[in-house]
Amino acid sequence: MIEIAVLGHGVVGSGVAELLLKNASGIARRAKTEINVKYILDIRDFPDCPYKDKFTKDFDVIVKDADVKVIVEVMGGVHPAYDYIMQGLRAGKSAVTSNKELVAEKGAELLKTAKENGVNFLFEASVGGGIPIIRPLHQCLAANEIDEIAGILNGTTNFILTKMIKESMPFDDALKMAQELGYAEADPTADVDGHDSCRKICILASLAFGSHVYPELVHTEGIRNITLDDVLYAGNSGCVVKLIGQAHRTGDGKIFVRVGPALVPHESQLSSVDDVFNAILVRGDSTGDVVFYGKGAGKFPTASAVVGDVIDCINARGNIDSLYWTDSGKDNVAYAKSESVVMYIRCAINRDVSAEKINDKFGGVTFLSHDGQRPGEAAFLTAKMPECEIDELAEGLSLLSKIRVLESE
Amino acid sequence: MIEIAVLGHGVVGSGVAELLLKNASGIARRAKTEINVKYILDIRDFPDCPYKDKFTKDFDVIVKDADVKVIVEVMGGVHPAYDYIMQGLRAGKSAVTSNKELVAEKGAELLKTAKENGVNFLFEASVGGGIPIIRPLHQCLAANEIDEIAGILNGTTNFILTKMIKESMPFDDALKMAQELGYAEADPTADVDGHDSCRKICILASLAFGSHVYPELVHTEGIRNITLDDVLYAGNSGCVVKLIGQAHRTGDGKIFVRVGPALVPHESQLSSVDDVFNAILVRGDSTGDVVFYGKGAGKFPTASAVVGDVIDCINARGNIDSLYWTDSGKDNVAYAKSESVVMYIRCAINRDVSAEKINDKFGGVTFLSHDGQRPGEAAFLTAKMPECEIDELAEGLSLLSKIRVLESE
Repeated sequence: MIEIAVLGHGVVGSGVAELLLKNASGIARRAKTEINVKYILDIRDFPDCPYKDKFTKDFDVIVKDADVKVIVEVMGGVHPAYDYIMQGLRAGKSAVTSNKELVAEKGAELLKTAKENGVNFLFEASVGGGIPIIRPLHQCLAANEIDEIAGILNGTTNFILTKMIKESMPFDDALKMAQELGYAEADPTADVDGHDSCRKICILASLAFGSHVYPELVHTEGIRNITLDDVLYAGNSGCVVKLIGQAHRTGDGKIFVRVGPALVPHESQLSSVDDVFNAILVRGDSTGDVVFYGKGAGKFPTASAVVGDVIDCINARGNIDSLYWTDSGKDNVAYAKSESVVMYIRCAINRDVSAEKINDKFGGVTFLSHDGQRPGEAAFLTAKMPECEIDELAEGLSLLSKIRVLESE
Repeated sequence: MIEIAVLGHGVVGSGVAELLLKNASGIARRAKTEINVKYILDIRDFPDCPYKDKFTKDFDVIVKDADVKVIVEVMGGVHPAYDYIMQGLRAGKSAVTSNKELVAEKGAELLKTAKENGVNFLFEASVGGGIPIIRPLHQCLAANEIDEIAGILNGTTNFILTKMIKESMPFDDALKMAQELGYAEADPTADVDGHDSCRKICILASLAFGSHVYPELVHTEGIRNITLDDVLYAGNSGCVVKLIGQAHRTGDGKIFVRVGPALVPHESQLSSVDDVFNAILVRGDSTGDVVFYGKGAGKFPTASAVVGDVIDCINARGNIDSLYWTDSGKDNVAYAKSESVVMYIRCAINRDVSAEKINDKFGGVTFLSHDGQRPGEAAFLTAKMPECEIDELAEGLSLLSKIRVLESE
């Protein structure tokens, strides 16, 4: 029997406890031992919980108990999660987390500490909820060099965009519905402004390219400014608007990472990923495109990823040292605007700015239309060129929208 | 440095050798040691091959060489592949294969022998080519009970069906094109009649449900009888025709497995999987639907899966005993026709069999139509009922087609 402690008894934490009970025999078969939750740390009281005896408010009790082999951190936030996990790792306990903010901020340091102490720090649940992605990236694709990662990494924004695309629901109404359904929080900033997607692509890029990518260095845009007009123009050009996190290596050995809305062509497997689903495309030099699809959040999908990691901690003999990346001097991220893109632009047209002038200025563009198109505006796709050049050419335009087109190859 | 031997120098075998050279440093980092191909077994001569010194025609040399730690079998066919691997495992060497026929026929026995000898028998490449599926099934989803597996498991038939659906190309022409492009063999039986898909769903079902599922027990249909009319009727009912392998547990503890064409509704993630791509949907009780998508065949995708397994063999300390299933008395497969389905039926109508009579006979059906519909035939969807009842009701009809509808939930 292996004893574990669970830090946090919120949605995911209670899911972990329930799952360990519900699938106990299957889990024991795969872990080759029973798993017992010895402690649950929470500052709140749960007097009616069937396992109320397990609760403690004192982390010291957990870290000093030599029986506890694995600490599951599902509290969220960087502190005190980071401090607890560091103490746990140094005390020779493995740690499992679903906390993307923590991994995106402190991953390199926590991986290093785990390695130094011969234990593991695993975080499958931090990206893609119940979708296996961290493990396939570092293990199944071991024989590949990763050329590109592109993903729909946030279910809330994908739900909102799906409502806009399929039901012509304005952004504000779709956000309100997401909040009512519990998909979005009262303060939706982390989802809607792309920060959540940013943390996740940082984790994937760090793992794929071996060097810690800090979220603060990543060009990040959200979906607040996407309008139904954009959705309709995009539709008529054979695309859907999705919030995409992307990463690849650049020629000079840096890492390109970006989060932002993108026009995704119907040919792309990512275009058919709707509602709260996530999908992550990994392009390996040998495998070609592999896509992982599933529910990116939710109590039980996330809890099942956490429990999978707990089983791996138990089965591992010592540190799984292929799951690793080094810290960076925060000098490893490429300047995103050097990247060449095709840009969708919507802008006002008037006496000074005619469609003809736009076409001349950008050296040839493709104009888009839709049935309810407003007078006095134009929407078009540019040729492919460095984004900084597009920005320069767009100076003087009354910009209404500017959205990159995702390249399918 | 770890020495390995590769049995077979065909498409996949030469891909393995090339990949080990091309990505040597990345592979060495993940395996924590260099990997050297000491022997290549092939009955043919390769006088111009840059590593022609490695070739041997004598398996005894390999099995008796204590330096060889891993045997890679990429010859195909059950014999002598089975005999070589058994000898290798008994000599304390791990084995990796891409040979689905072998795993589907002899998997339980080979897994048992590997376990008894404290080594590994791995076969990620046998299903889905470069798509990670075997490892996620047994490991990432460790905390789940698997409720259902459904997949597009054969790229050749998916290419043919895509041509029929998207370009209204008749079956024979699409098959010819697949042969010209090298996707289908001169004798396309294994692909077109569903045997290849059957082997793959047997492997997945054996692993998910823990008991060997023998292909000969599985109800298997191919796509030879699918016509453009079926594709058009299906399209007008919001579906595409795909060759689907499916498996789940039944109430009485048996395993339901079936391979056959199916009408897949557009809402299903499997409906947008086109051309030679494969996709496998795994429904876990906690994760919900997770889909793995990618190229299911090809030299480098398959070779990269093989090399990933070789790395796992090297990193594993002893037998990875969670990757296991037991043999069965061939009494574990459910009678497929007891399963309730919605059926698409196309049949002749005439004086004796009118649309009205059909509707009455089946207790209410939904008639389908398409623009070029032939006079004298009807196409309809039945209500959901056990397939054996549908067969009974269909007696006396002049059947032209009969295709199951894939349930999306």
